[in-house]
Amino acid sequence: LQSKFPDLGLTIFSRMSALAQETGAINLSQGFPDFAVDADLQAGVTQAMAAGHNQYAPMPGLPALRAAIAAKFASAYGLAVDANSEITVTAGATQALYTAIAAVLRAGDEALILEPAYDSYAPAIVAQGALPVRVALAPPSFAVDWDAVAAAITPRTRLIIVNNPNNPATSVFSRADLDALAAIAERHDLLVLSDEVYEHLVFDGRQHASVLSHAGLRARSFAVYSFGKTFHATGWKIGYCVATPELTAEFRKLHQYLVFSVSTPMQAALAQHLAEPTHWQGLAGFYQAKRDRLAPGLEAAGFRLLPSAGTYFQLADYRAIRPDLGELAFAEWLTREYGVASIPVSAFYADGRDHGLVRFCFAKREDTLDAAIAKLGRLA
Amino acid sequence: LQSKFPDLGLTIFSRMSALAQETGAINLSQGFPDFAVDADLQAGVTQAMAAGHNQYAPMPGLPALRAAIAAKFASAYGLAVDANSEITVTAGATQALYTAIAAVLRAGDEALILEPAYDSYAPAIVAQGALPVRVALAPPSFAVDWDAVAAAITPRTRLIIVNNPNNPATSVFSRADLDALAAIAERHDLLVLSDEVYEHLVFDGRQHASVLSHAGLRARSFAVYSFGKTFHATGWKIGYCVATPELTAEFRKLHQYLVFSVSTPMQAALAQHLAEPTHWQGLAGFYQAKRDRLAPGLEAAGFRLLPSAGTYFQLADYRAIRPDLGELAFAEWLTREYGVASIPVSAFYADGRDHGLVRFCFAKREDTLDAAIAKLGRLA
Ligand SMILES: CSCCC(=O)C(=O)O
Ligand SMILES: CSCCC(=O)C(=O)O
Repeated sequence: LQSKFPDLGLTIFSRMSALAQETGAINLSQGFPDFAVDADLQAGVTQAMAAGHNQYAPMPGLPALRAAIAAKFASAYGLAVDANSEITVTAGATQALYTAIAAVLRAGDEALILEPAYDSYAPAIVAQGALPVRVALAPPSFAVDWDAVAAAITPRTRLIIVNNPNNPATSVFSRADLDALAAIAERHDLLVLSDEVYEHLVFDGRQHASVLSHAGLRARSFAVYSFGKTFHATGWKIGYCVATPELTAEFRKLHQYLVFSVSTPMQAALAQHLAEPTHWQGLAGFYQAKRDRLAPGLEAAGFRLLPSAGTYFQLADYRAIRPDLGELAFAEWLTREYGVASIPVSAFYADGRDHGLVRFCFAKREDTLDAAIAKLGRLA
Repeated sequence: LQSKFPDLGLTIFSRMSALAQETGAINLSQGFPDFAVDADLQAGVTQAMAAGHNQYAPMPGLPALRAAIAAKFASAYGLAVDANSEITVTAGATQALYTAIAAVLRAGDEALILEPAYDSYAPAIVAQGALPVRVALAPPSFAVDWDAVAAAITPRTRLIIVNNPNNPATSVFSRADLDALAAIAERHDLLVLSDEVYEHLVFDGRQHASVLSHAGLRARSFAVYSFGKTFHATGWKIGYCVATPELTAEFRKLHQYLVFSVSTPMQAALAQHLAEPTHWQGLAGFYQAKRDRLAPGLEAAGFRLLPSAGTYFQLADYRAIRPDLGELAFAEWLTREYGVASIPVSAFYADGRDHGLVRFCFAKREDTLDAAIAKLGRLA
């Protein structure tokens, strides 16, 4: 058997979580909360099952959930999204990303991605016979150089993928970023795929700048969201994609043959839960407090921290501790020797470039964060 | 926007279920049960959520579920399947089918499908830039003419997709079919994708003939299964793919970027439930009784029935009732005028060929089947 994808190995998340489990380390690598899912949301699943909501949902998602999503966009951002024609519920954001990419990219097309990039974008592009073209962002700000983006565009470029708030960079877009992206996309007639799964995790009073809130981008963008991130249930694997009716029609053509539909009882429960705005309104503050609990401990251990403006991750420069180690080696060393697992940022660059940075997930209970800090102690 | 998939419309299942809902008809079109999911299985989900199983499962599936699946293969068929390296849990069988196809087909490859064919195969093939090559089976037996299959093979053929038990043909493979398939696959070094989601729904004392039970096929096949079909929970969207370690490695390369992982609480509950063999051992008898309850009513209404050897569907020739109508027109007429929805078999042929047949789903409560029979009355 000649592999169609000889270059694809196991994801860094599977690898580091496995190492954490094997060594009994505190797992601040793969991004997932270690606290409970809201009891009412759980009860909603139980009730939905008992009420008989166990058969195929309509292909685009339960009408009640799509209505609640539309109401959320109105309430959170003042945005009008049509529940019928612009929302498709997916088996997690990963499936939404893959489906949008597969729905529009043809063999030979190019798609621009900004590195550090979430690890599913490039394989999904390659699986369409298309080519990922990478523009690297650099620490500490990871600000997008939009001139560099414009310079990377060729006649074959069809799609730009952005991630805002950015995992792992923890940076967020400004309105000026959206304007610059829109100008490029319009000039070259590109589609945009915006991974906004951390939409509610924008800190220090800033506002999330969605592509859906920008008229120019609204017409040419797929925006992808995740209930796993918003409701602390990454294992439920429910997300959604928002796009114009025309783009949604293309998305659904593939979605219906890729998964057909998505867990009915969980959709029913999420519809109820999402309808109550207090269930997501406090999220930024909740996670900001966790960020601010982990940060001093990391600094005391000898890390130099980069500002975390969004997501539930903290980037840390470890070179004052072990300047001799590359990022992967450092992350493995820290896991084995100090019992705290992290993710090397080099895993998000195709060329594996090394900035002496690892990523910690702070979506954890306070006692977990405190235990990690205690384990690290003073390293430098 | 120029569509990448100009030929893809809404699936026949979405269309007929929508018509059934709009007209208030009894929905015997899209295949799904209308009775409850086992209360213990539901309770398992509730308990799993409460126990905190709400974050990402390991990418290939929960170890406990994969172990239970392996035990089922041993107990049901005496087959050895390795839980670690040969099983991947998916977001329903549809995702498993798509992923297997995308993992091995390259642009320009050909894949053989036997028509009538489940409607997701061809779009998944086309989405890889590959070409579906069709061999038509004909009523009443829908037996495979393996010489015709062999004759359709070209140097570009890479994969044969089979469906056993067959939806919508309701036919099942014999050992001789497996031998013939194996001979062709070996001679031309082809991979096989076997959709076996109705494995437990084989009637009249026959045994399911899985590709996994045939040494020659075992080495070159992906076999796909569905908990939705087995545990009356089509809306939970959990299935799995079984293949050799080498093929599974290729499958997972894509799976991890297509969905990453699958609902953790539902996997946990299914692991418990599957471990008890009585939960699936009685299934054939359970559905055979439903088949035998619907059949006389359809015959009394004037349909001529084709033998249903497997699946939860019944094919019916309606030409004694309305010889003037094509299959789609008849199905729509029956839905609107008599309040019973069915599926035109022509939807499973790319050329829409018409045999005067519609498909009824008998995965329904007895009172639902009786109500449908009463609505139909005597049509011819
Ligand atoms: C799908 S596992 C990865 C989870 C995640 O988003 C991350 O850790 O970056
Ligand atoms: C995914 S909807 C189709 C359900 C089904 O398997 C059928 O009706 O054939």
